[in-house]
Amino acid sequence: MKKAVILYSGGLDSTTCLALAHSEGFAPHALSFAYGQRHAVELDKAREYAPRVGAVAHLVVEVDMRRIGGSALTADLDVPKDGVEEGAIPVTYVPARNTVFLSFALGWAEVVGAFDIYIGVNALDYSGYPDCRPEYIAAFEQMANLATRAAVEGQGRYRIHTPLIDLSKADIIRRGLELGVDYALTHSCYDPTPAGLACGRCDSCRLRLKGFAEAGVPDPLAYA
Amino acid sequence: MKKAVILYSGGLDSTTCLALAHSEGFAPHALSFAYGQRHAVELDKAREYAPRVGAVAHLVVEVDMRRIGGSALTADLDVPKDGVEEGAIPVTYVPARNTVFLSFALGWAEVVGAFDIYIGVNALDYSGYPDCRPEYIAAFEQMANLATRAAVEGQGRYRIHTPLIDLSKADIIRRGLELGVDYALTHSCYDPTPAGLACGRCDSCRLRLKGFAEAGVPDPLAYA
Repeated sequence: MKKAVILYSGGLDSTTCLALAHSEGFAPHALSFAYGQRHAVELDKAREYAPRVGAVAHLVVEVDMRRIGGSALTADLDVPKDGVEEGAIPVTYVPARNTVFLSFALGWAEVVGAFDIYIGVNALDYSGYPDCRPEYIAAFEQMANLATRAAVEGQGRYRIHTPLIDLSKADIIRRGLELGVDYALTHSCYDPTPAGLACGRCDSCRLRLKGFAEAGVPDPLAYA
Repeated sequence: MKKAVILYSGGLDSTTCLALAHSEGFAPHALSFAYGQRHAVELDKAREYAPRVGAVAHLVVEVDMRRIGGSALTADLDVPKDGVEEGAIPVTYVPARNTVFLSFALGWAEVVGAFDIYIGVNALDYSGYPDCRPEYIAAFEQMANLATRAAVEGQGRYRIHTPLIDLSKADIIRRGLELGVDYALTHSCYDPTPAGLACGRCDSCRLRLKGFAEAGVPDPLAYA
């Protein structure tokens, strides 16, 4: 079985992505980050759920993005709760986050001998982050194939898979349900309560709830 | 004064790079990593020396690259001591290291409002690492300008500066001496003694010693 590295936060998108990689015949190596995010509750669920969605390995890497700051998710800023603003990149944007995450994925892929990396970015029902767009992904892939010994020595060509990039949130949910994903075990909130309940009001909760509504299925998650 | 982020390990190349950025009129923001490397002694010297070479800020980010492994510098492999092997990428290669480091530099640059990033890679007297080549650097720069809010919103264009890329080690040393770099305070060894003395036999020590010999000046560093 060919190995693939999956960027996996335990959220709705990345869990679906993990299930998809598994269904496409890869041996998924799930990669999570403890990066000083507020929603560390995601990581606990991610650890527990990864093997049940097919992960054969799960690595949690600590990267202290709080030292860099610049985002409501890593610095001491308020997470907006008043709805998704159209056309603007919100304060939940974490500078260079996907670039940092994909870089680690590339390093781990090279070590385990994988050439396929999955990332659950989505350019449709998303928050306007520049590092979720197809042109960014293509540029990262090109760079990855110049960065590594395995590529330069001709052992293979790295490919960044973005199976969710053109899907609506409702499509993602439908696809995941077909694959048996239990969305009660995925977490999306940017600002959960201390007990771990989703707020229901941040951009991420709003996009998730809208997706379930459009898919015509109830969201099994408990909200505050 | 325009800000620049400098990847700075405290080694010979990156210290010269920091001095160069300062001499080119930038306010240098030095960025170091504690990444589970064996040569943590570098970091102590780096912390002490950064302001003396012109750094106005110095950030040390912990990234646990041991979790990924795959290199003599981060895993439990022996550092080679028998001389620089021609044409092969040695076991001291750290998968995706410069990509991970540049990604953090990009994130910090965006937060502080810098568009210039300096990295002391060298394609001449180097160890054959793929992520030290000009084509890799160009690909990273292109990706960076698609990855970030500051670039996408047109606030500026990121530039990766590699002022040492075409210089011999002797040229780098000559340039650094002109700028007043005290090389007694820089460290290059991959495998120093517990007391912090350079081994004199690893690739990095050999390249450094060869550089000082060719520059016709004594290396002020103490060797084991």
